Amino acid sequence: MSEDMIRVTYRLETPGDPAALAAKIASDQSTGTFTVLPGETAEVKARCAARVLSVTTLADTETPSFPTEGNRFHRADVVIGYPLEAVGTDIAALMTITVGGVYSVRGLSGVRVMDFDLPPAFARHPGPQFGIDGSRALTNVYGRPIIGSIIKPALGLAPADTAVMVKELCEAGVDFIKDDEKLMSPGYSPLADRINAVMPVIDAHEQNTGKRVMYAWGISSADPDQMMENHDLVVRAGGNAGVININSIGYGGMTFLRKRSQLCLHAHRNGWDILTRHTGLGMEFAAYGKIWRLLGVDQFQINGIAAKYWEPDDSFVRSFQSCATPIFSLKDRPLPVVGSGQWGGQAVETYARTGQTTDLMYLGGGGIHGHPGGAASGVAAIRQAWEAAVQGVSLVDYAKDHKALAQALQKFGGK
Amino acid sequence: MSEDMIRVTYRLETPGDPAALAAKIASDQSTGTFTVLPGETAEVKARCAARVLSVTTLADTETPSFPTEGNRFHRADVVIGYPLEAVGTDIAALMTITVGGVYSVRGLSGVRVMDFDLPPAFARHPGPQFGIDGSRALTNVYGRPIIGSIIKPALGLAPADTAVMVKELCEAGVDFIKDDEKLMSPGYSPLADRINAVMPVIDAHEQNTGKRVMYAWGISSADPDQMMENHDLVVRAGGNAGVININSIGYGGMTFLRKRSQLCLHAHRNGWDILTRHTGLGMEFAAYGKIWRLLGVDQFQINGIAAKYWEPDDSFVRSFQSCATPIFSLKDRPLPVVGSGQWGGQAVETYARTGQTTDLMYLGGGGIHGHPGGAASGVAAIRQAWEAAVQGVSLVDYAKDHKALAQALQKFGGK
Repeated sequence: MSEDMIRVTYRLETPGDPAALAAKIASDQSTGTFTVLPGETAEVKARCAARVLSVTTLADTETPSFPTEGNRFHRADVVIGYPLEAVGTDIAALMTITVGGVYSVRGLSGVRVMDFDLPPAFARHPGPQFGIDGSRALTNVYGRPIIGSIIKPALGLAPADTAVMVKELCEAGVDFIKDDEKLMSPGYSPLADRINAVMPVIDAHEQNTGKRVMYAWGISSADPDQMMENHDLVVRAGGNAGVININSIGYGGMTFLRKRSQLCLHAHRNGWDILTRHTGLGMEFAAYGKIWRLLGVDQFQINGIAAKYWEPDDSFVRSFQSCATPIFSLKDRPLPVVGSGQWGGQAVETYARTGQTTDLMYLGGGGIHGHPGGAASGVAAIRQAWEAAVQGVSLVDYAKDHKALAQALQKFGGK
Repeated sequence: MSEDMIRVTYRLETPGDPAALAAKIASDQSTGTFTVLPGETAEVKARCAARVLSVTTLADTETPSFPTEGNRFHRADVVIGYPLEAVGTDIAALMTITVGGVYSVRGLSGVRVMDFDLPPAFARHPGPQFGIDGSRALTNVYGRPIIGSIIKPALGLAPADTAVMVKELCEAGVDFIKDDEKLMSPGYSPLADRINAVMPVIDAHEQNTGKRVMYAWGISSADPDQMMENHDLVVRAGGNAGVININSIGYGGMTFLRKRSQLCLHAHRNGWDILTRHTGLGMEFAAYGKIWRLLGVDQFQINGIAAKYWEPDDSFVRSFQSCATPIFSLKDRPLPVVGSGQWGGQAVETYARTGQTTDLMYLGGGGIHGHPGGAASGVAAIRQAWEAAVQGVSLVDYAKDHKALAQALQKFGGK
């Protein structure tokens, strides 16, 4: 029985009784409607009815998550089991039945999907094609984080200007470069032109140094056919990675691409924030990330310590831990991509709080481009910060005989 | 200049200064990063920088939308203009740049995307293939709402049982039947088997009566290839419509399907609620609906008056008005599908509040199946209620010589 059950954990908040609401959800999301119907037989219920498996009461709150009348709201973590028979393994069915419908239920003052516990049948999904091992093999970086950077400014650079910046970043020693997630194929920098301008720089750098920098191209399109054309352009030019804006291509775009992809897929989750930013609403990354991992994300952007965006450090740490935890096998772990406002100063805390691993990509944008000693010093500072973290030395101590780190500390660490 | 500008209206809420935050958003979402960069030249800024076009101050609030420290939060409706040159017309780029990134900005205590004002270049998107006129032509219903019903229970019926219910609904006089949005192709009712069981019933009904009932099949899949297989199964069997769970297939699935579709696409927006239910967060339907209309939704489920779900009537009315308003032409208007807890009793108010139009589909699930006189009486009650609405007669008066409506009023109207 347990192998055939999809278990979803929800944090429910309501002015009423959470257990009763859970029972209503289980009924609405399987066999019920607002009036008793002739077809809702015992046999149908037995085959397809969702069931409340547990209700764990949490402390009440006086502040409703959705604006709601009242002054006391009850909360519980509720696990509902959905028979696999009733849902199947299609992600569209899973999300429609166990998530989409639940968000619409009347009487909730808050609802957050905390996690999915999926039966083995979901292992049919492809998962990452490259993941951690593949990302390391493609970059030939071992024993430390893969260090990456982002082309800035995000928008507005002509392809020739991008190529200049790529050359500088290659020479600065990065392992990975990406288009800003906002850059796909606009009029001033069509993807084909950008590839034509940039790829020779990457090829030349490989010829000169033996090091092939991974470049993730902005291949996203809401049109899967167009996205595949973008993908093919990259592949034909010898590229090995693409940036995909997962929420902007959707499950359909992702599934279509992954089936045909030869690229390492670097996922940016823009749009995700509105689903998780209110702690009483939406979804935890643990749940969200699992779906996209099953669909094939290889590298997953998850912010970082002291990100420039809204996300608190604890949320980032939970996301990292979730990425590092297998769903069905070690291979379904994506490479966590730690970015946003990173310049090396967060290396010690990142290392300490994410299980003392270096299996991650560490992305510096302004932290590399804006280093007072230039981009090479920006990359060096990040490498030095990670050396300090792994050796258990404070950054201040390590900076005493590491000039790039010292400069970074002075410019970025002075708050 | 105006033709080349994408204008997005946001409702911002912040403990700080909304105008300053708007300026930061415009910078972050185009050319900026957290430190001044060499590449961010005047030329780049001129070509691609987003600009704050207006700031309309709203009343302060003491209750933050995102949990946020403080006791006074300032609000404003802000219009930001993004050069078309910087974004292009790809929906993935539009959503990444103008929506996804904005949700992540630090310092917001609330953010809601109110509307998109898109330049004519976006008219390249296909829009509805059938829309209002096509839906009427396929059902041959004019001068009144298209009346539809949903197979219930949502999950668990074997194909043969579904066929029995379809026969009953056809004989009851409905114009349209749909799979519940939760039903796609599960093990107990694979789509192919369901088609084989149900389509002969629809064909026979047409032969007997001359009336071809439109049936919308649950063709959604997160895999566009699978969805096209589902689509083709329906087309080969002579079917004319599909239910698509738009959030569960994503922009990619929708775009892929619309390019190839021969079916009238009936959209269910499950999952949408979490984006709009908190009035200070997420998105208005006016914005959301436009995107999906451009991508090709023909029939758009938008709840109804006194829905069984959380949505207030005012929100439904705004959604209806938005659907009824052209983006670029009359042809991009989808057929509004009024459903959820509908049994006819809401016809008068619906008609009054949505512009006295009958250009809509009116969906009864339990209101038809659960009518005390049987499904035929359920359909009759709905037709009678709409006759009353159009004639300006109250339901109670109209029910005096319309028995089905009288029974419906007694069973469903007694609260």
